[in-house]
Amino acid sequence: MKLPNLLLVISGPSGVGKGTLVSRYMERHPESYLSISLTTRKPRPNEVFGKDYFFVTPEEFRKEIENDNLLEWAQVFGDLYGTPRQPVIDALRSGRDAILEIDVQGGVRVKTCFPESVLIFVLPPSQEELRRRLTKRGTEDQETLQRRLEVAKVEFQYLKYYDFFLINDLLEVAVSDLERIIFSEKHRVSRMEQFFKEGGGPFAIP
Amino acid sequence: MKLPNLLLVISGPSGVGKGTLVSRYMERHPESYLSISLTTRKPRPNEVFGKDYFFVTPEEFRKEIENDNLLEWAQVFGDLYGTPRQPVIDALRSGRDAILEIDVQGGVRVKTCFPESVLIFVLPPSQEELRRRLTKRGTEDQETLQRRLEVAKVEFQYLKYYDFFLINDLLEVAVSDLERIIFSEKHRVSRMEQFFKEGGGPFAIP
Repeated sequence: MKLPNLLLVISGPSGVGKGTLVSRYMERHPESYLSISLTTRKPRPNEVFGKDYFFVTPEEFRKEIENDNLLEWAQVFGDLYGTPRQPVIDALRSGRDAILEIDVQGGVRVKTCFPESVLIFVLPPSQEELRRRLTKRGTEDQETLQRRLEVAKVEFQYLKYYDFFLINDLLEVAVSDLERIIFSEKHRVSRMEQFFKEGGGPFAIP
Repeated sequence: MKLPNLLLVISGPSGVGKGTLVSRYMERHPESYLSISLTTRKPRPNEVFGKDYFFVTPEEFRKEIENDNLLEWAQVFGDLYGTPRQPVIDALRSGRDAILEIDVQGGVRVKTCFPESVLIFVLPPSQEELRRRLTKRGTEDQETLQRRLEVAKVEFQYLKYYDFFLINDLLEVAVSDLERIIFSEKHRVSRMEQFFKEGGGPFAIP
């Protein structure tokens, strides 16, 4: 029985480790498609064009919006971020899961357009742990750190629009937990109703 | 973070092995509460009163209905089956998961009264495998076997009212799959919204 493929959105505050979580998940599930966002933000050290992001100018970004090439886009910390539409549609049409690691505004927009998408909000074990992780990252000055913690509180208000929450304490546990949620959603009857109606599975729905 | 407890309904055609599945799950999770049904059916060999079922007369059963002591009840194969209400309510109030292994009619009734309940439909890998399992059980004559297969087709029409389907091929895999669905549902934001609103979790929703 071929299980349905999913459009997954992973969000959460900066520093919660959603990037690492998604990378580890992709290592375990290379058959899934991970969307690469467009951004006007400057690359951080070690970030690679076309792997972490497509780094573009604000003009280039605006052209993509005008041409309706973005599935969603949002402004975060003054920078623009967007999801190229076509690769996601192609991945879903070919039967692959598509994973979008995007901010909460983008997540809500995806849910509006794709009600069947699965929105997962990654939480830190505690506020203190989030602060510790942001500090450890070392790419942020004290002012930016404080701002990100304030923004995290605002982002948390979007939790209610999300389907699931996931606590990222130990990485390997969190990856397995993500797998559990994905497994479960693939076994949701409503996603398979058409399949069962058409006579799939052990019996056909008359 | 205390996760929410669930009211779980496990259903599926006779012979699919849902009894064995639930027993194995309970061995792994003795903290859960497994409901014991009332029935007017005659005990099978090895079935124990108060462990497998409360075996009662039709008169006793009707009295329980009249006194509104049943959470749900239904007629299956000419026999009456019902779920005693109070033990389930007590288990849920004390924070335990409550598991009801009941027929599809009962499952739909539970969902109507408790929309937050989680309904899981256990499927055989194939029709042939279901026939094989029913034959192997050896407690059924050829006529009963044929009737159960026909009934399975009717029961399958209730699949669309269920939240999840689960294929019972290898027992230990199926038990783990059941655990995955339960884990996932415990991480559904809507079940925790009140908790988050009241300031639970790493941040409070204002």
